[in-house]
Formats: sequence, C-alpha cells, structure tokens
Amino acid sequence: MPGTSASDAGAARLSAESDFIAALRGIATDPAARGLLDDAAVLPVAAGRLVLTHDMIVEGVHYLPDDPPEDVAWKLLAVNLSDLAAKGAQPLGCLLGYTLGRDDGWNARFVAGLGEALDRFAIPLLGGDSVGVQGPRVLGLTAIGAAGENVPDRRGAKPGDDLWVAGTVGDAGLGLALLRAGGAAPEALVAAYRRPVPLVAAGRALAARVAAMADVSDGLLIDAARIAAASGLAVTLDLAAVPLSDAAKSFGTDRSARLKAATAGDDYALVFAAPVSRRAILATLLEPFGVSIARIGRFDAGSGLGLVDGADTVPLPGALGYEHGA
Amino acid sequence: MPGTSASDAGAARLSAESDFIAALRGIATDPAARGLLDDAAVLPVAAGRLVLTHDMIVEGVHYLPDDPPEDVAWKLLAVNLSDLAAKGAQPLGCLLGYTLGRDDGWNARFVAGLGEALDRFAIPLLGGDSVGVQGPRVLGLTAIGAAGENVPDRRGAKPGDDLWVAGTVGDAGLGLALLRAGGAAPEALVAAYRRPVPLVAAGRALAARVAAMADVSDGLLIDAARIAAASGLAVTLDLAAVPLSDAAKSFGTDRSARLKAATAGDDYALVFAAPVSRRAILATLLEPFGVSIARIGRFDAGSGLGLVDGADTVPLPGALGYEHGA
Repeated sequence: MPGTSASDAGAARLSAESDFIAALRGIATDPAARGLLDDAAVLPVAAGRLVLTHDMIVEGVHYLPDDPPEDVAWKLLAVNLSDLAAKGAQPLGCLLGYTLGRDDGWNARFVAGLGEALDRFAIPLLGGDSVGVQGPRVLGLTAIGAAGENVPDRRGAKPGDDLWVAGTVGDAGLGLALLRAGGAAPEALVAAYRRPVPLVAAGRALAARVAAMADVSDGLLIDAARIAAASGLAVTLDLAAVPLSDAAKSFGTDRSARLKAATAGDDYALVFAAPVSRRAILATLLEPFGVSIARIGRFDAGSGLGLVDGADTVPLPGALGYEHGA
Repeated sequence: MPGTSASDAGAARLSAESDFIAALRGIATDPAARGLLDDAAVLPVAAGRLVLTHDMIVEGVHYLPDDPPEDVAWKLLAVNLSDLAAKGAQPLGCLLGYTLGRDDGWNARFVAGLGEALDRFAIPLLGGDSVGVQGPRVLGLTAIGAAGENVPDRRGAKPGDDLWVAGTVGDAGLGLALLRAGGAAPEALVAAYRRPVPLVAAGRALAARVAAMADVSDGLLIDAARIAAASGLAVTLDLAAVPLSDAAKSFGTDRSARLKAATAGDDYALVFAAPVSRRAILATLLEPFGVSIARIGRFDAGSGLGLVDGADTVPLPGALGYEHGA
C-alpha cells in the first residue's frame, strides 16, 4: 500500500486516503499482509496448484450508485470467491484494487462491509492499492485459493454426461426487479441480490466428482451453453427441472417464471457436468452444506443449447443471460 | 474472463470487448491461463512463500492521456514487478484488471505493449477481467512471485546499518520534465520514464544479504525515510553519494541536481539497509547484472530523516517525493 497515490486535490484528499488505509489495516490483520506497510504480501503456501481470479465491479454497471456500500464490498468478495468455488479451491487470501471517491462515509462503510464479508468467508485481506479518481468507482479484487486434487475445467464435459446445478437460480434477479419496482420484497430475495453467498464448501466437495464446472454468474442458460461450447458438445436443458427457492416459487413456478430464473444471472449457483455413474453419490453429496442439487439436462455430441419443458420443446429466448454489452 | 461485462452501449461495444479478449488470448498462452476460457487460472507452485502485489495506474494520475498505450502497459507491469524485485521474488504470473475505453486502437496498442513487456520480463499473463467504463482508464495488475529464503521487510533495518541504493535515481523525473518542456530529451531518460526496467534479478541477488529493502517508486528520500520509520530508526542520507546515470549527469551534478534526483520518484531503483559487515560482498554483487550500487547513508537509533552533502548539513526539501495528494 505505500505506493498508494491520489490526484492533486491536496491535503484533505491525502488525509482521506490515510484514513482509508488505516481502516483497511484494521481488517488486514493476517501476518501475510505485513500490516499493509510493505511493498507486497508474503503468503506461505504448500506445494500444489493455486487458483487465481480477478473480477471487477463497477458503479453503474454492476451495482447502482445508491446501493449500500457494505453490500457492494460483500459482492466484490463474493463474485471472486464464487470463481474459486467453481474450481473447488480453498480461499487463501485476496488483494483489493480501489478507486477512492470523494465520499469518505462511503469509503468507511465499504471497509466495514468488506470486513464483515472477510470474516464470514474466513479469507484474509493481504494487500492492494487505492487511487483517488474522479469518475465511476472501479473496484477490483484478486482472490487466491488452493486447489484440490481435481480442478474442474469448463472444457471437461463428455457426451452423455448429466447437466446439474447446485443451489437455486433466479433469486437475485427477482430481488433486484422487486427493489427496482419499489415494492416490498422478501428478505431472502433481497439478500440473494445484495449479499450472495458463494458455494465454496459445496464447490470443494463437488470438484473431485464432476467433469466440468462453472459458476452461474451471467445466467444458467448462458453458463451451461458456455460449458457445452468449451467442451465441443451440445447441451439440452429441462426448464421443468430448474430449481427455484421457496421465496422465488411464491412469485410463480410456470414456464415463464423458470425461463426468467434461468436467464437472470447474478446467482452464484454452480453448474456442472458429471457422468451418469455419479447420480447416486451426487444426489446426497451436498446435504451437509444445506445446498440443493438438481439434475437439469444432458450433454451430447453436437453443438448448441436446446431447451425443453418436460415433454415440450421450448424456443430459445432472445437473451440467454447477462451478456457483454447487454 | 467469461464474466467480463460492459455497459449498455450495445453490439459495437460487445464486439470491441470480444476483440480485446481475443487479443489478450494471443498473449496469454501459458497453460495456467486455461485460454482465458475458465473462471480462474490454475498455477502449479512449489511449497514456500508467495509474494503478492496489486498496483494500479490511472489515466491523468500516473500517466498522461496522450502517452503511448504500449508504454502505459509496460509501466503497469513494471511497477508491479518492481514490488516483487524489492522482496527478492521470482515472477510467476500476473492478472489484469482493465477498464475498456471506447478507443479500440488504444486497447489494441495496450495489448501489444503488454505482450512486449510480458516477453521482456518472462512472466505469463494468467487471467483477469475487463469492464466497459466511461471515465478515466483505471488499470490494475496483480503480480505473483515465488520468494527466496529471505523476504526483506521494510521493518528490518538495525542501528548502524548502511543505507544503499541499487540502480540510479532521477532519470525518469528528468525524462518527464524534458518531455513536458517539449524539447529534445536523451533517449535513455525518456526510456527511464516510459519503459522503466524493474531490477528483478538484482533484487533476488540482494534479498539474502539485506536487512530491509523497498523499491524507489515515490522518491529516494521518501522511500528511505519509510524504511527508517518502519524500522523505528533515524536515517541520514548523503546527497553527494546519490548515484546519477551518465545521461542525467549531463544535466548537472551539483547539490540541486542531486536533490531533484533524490525526490523525483518513478525510478524503480531498490533502496535497502545492510550490516556494515556486508560492504565488501555488496560492492561487487550486482556486477553480473550491470546494475550500479552505491552506499549513500546510515541508520541510527532515533527517528526521522537527516540530509547531508559531504561535510555539509542540508535542510530537508518541502517534498521528499511523490506523496499521496502531491
């Protein structure tokens, strides 16, 4: 952090930045962080494979300017931990890249929320950088994890494999829609949007048993289609099998509701391929974690995504999920 | 990279982002990057200690909007590798956080420059994220290195230790001043500003022999003072011993020139503390790397920075270097 720098707005700015870094020191207590006083963090690791990811969230793109800063911090960590979860990795630490806005209260609340999320997911903050910038907030986080024996790739699905999803989909999308409409929204749906919980423990349990896995950040349909494309296969998904939470079910369970849930994105469920021989073990594997699991389709030779609803073939919607530029 | 997203400017934007990621794939060829097609990178590591750093550079703060994008990319990598150098680490890989501006030519030139720098410093690009943002470009990079047996801390200087610097200081500051003045500038000085070379090999050689070390990103005086403060000591620095390059010497070698060099910043030299008993070995240690080394002061009990010029005491300048907000 010593290289931290700011634009030329003078002493008030400097003091705001010092306050911010002092607040970060309060939550970066792992010895590997070296008190944020050194050029870099120093983290002991065992021999093996590291899983590394860096995801950004940007004001006005991934969150609304008036979203609570605590929740923005939570989400920044959660989206990165969800990537580790999809690779079955145990989180080891993270580094923050932060544009320091002029609103000191926002910055303080962000640090408070980040501290809560670090505690909740038991991952240390190791270091990072902050820069004073006028413009939309650009928040980046690098998460580092230790891989298990198998690190599922998107490219590993085989013809005949089942398509599965761990967790439910559509909750965050419903929560956001209800918030935008200004009406009352069930707490579970708002929490799914504001404070998603990455399936880290479930991901570790699954990693050794799956052929391919990814998290559902952009929408179940698009993320399933990406696994199929990366594996050189076709995939067929049964909307009737798409798992909805109890809170979501109260807003509808028909084809239209399930299609909305399967294209909503922001879910942080895990979507994966596994051989038919694993059906029995998978059916109960996630019970200890309280995470639901559902078999929702199948991979075959060919290419592209097919959609059914029980016995009916369903035309693909115009958008499969949250796409670049969409 | 699949989670990459953009603002809602539509299909042209989507295509620009696809082009950018396709270009990145061309330079992210290490198997650990998984073709930028997976949620995360997977990097094999030996047991030991990792050195981790994340530094950002921002348009209008750390570089000028009309600086060549190739050089901005180079610098983004160099500033992070310089942090690894100061900890004596061998670079293992890096991840990029990139705000995608509307200027496709700029983006393409950035990728070209990043590719050159990755090749030059033999470090693989493993992954990252890009987001379409309107506003100043915010560029982040996380660098990961493998530590040697000793990972120098800022806090390790002891009373009586010598203060040393590896490399020369002031070149980048002179290069920038000459560019801004619009006159001719020696190539070596412009290169020091635009394409700094982090002292990675020298840092690895030094790490086992020093008591404390940091890189000179913000200015020799301020970075030496930070080592003293972190170690709970005073430090006295002799301006007469501050090493200037041949190119810099042609612009003056008097006290004022050396003071300017010692406060200019952007140098990426290494500043360190070492016991007196190491003088002989340090004097020749960096010859194989073609990096100069100079003994420029001493640590003592007490606090604060003292400045001399040979036998004269020199008052401290108003600014010790590039400070937050300065």
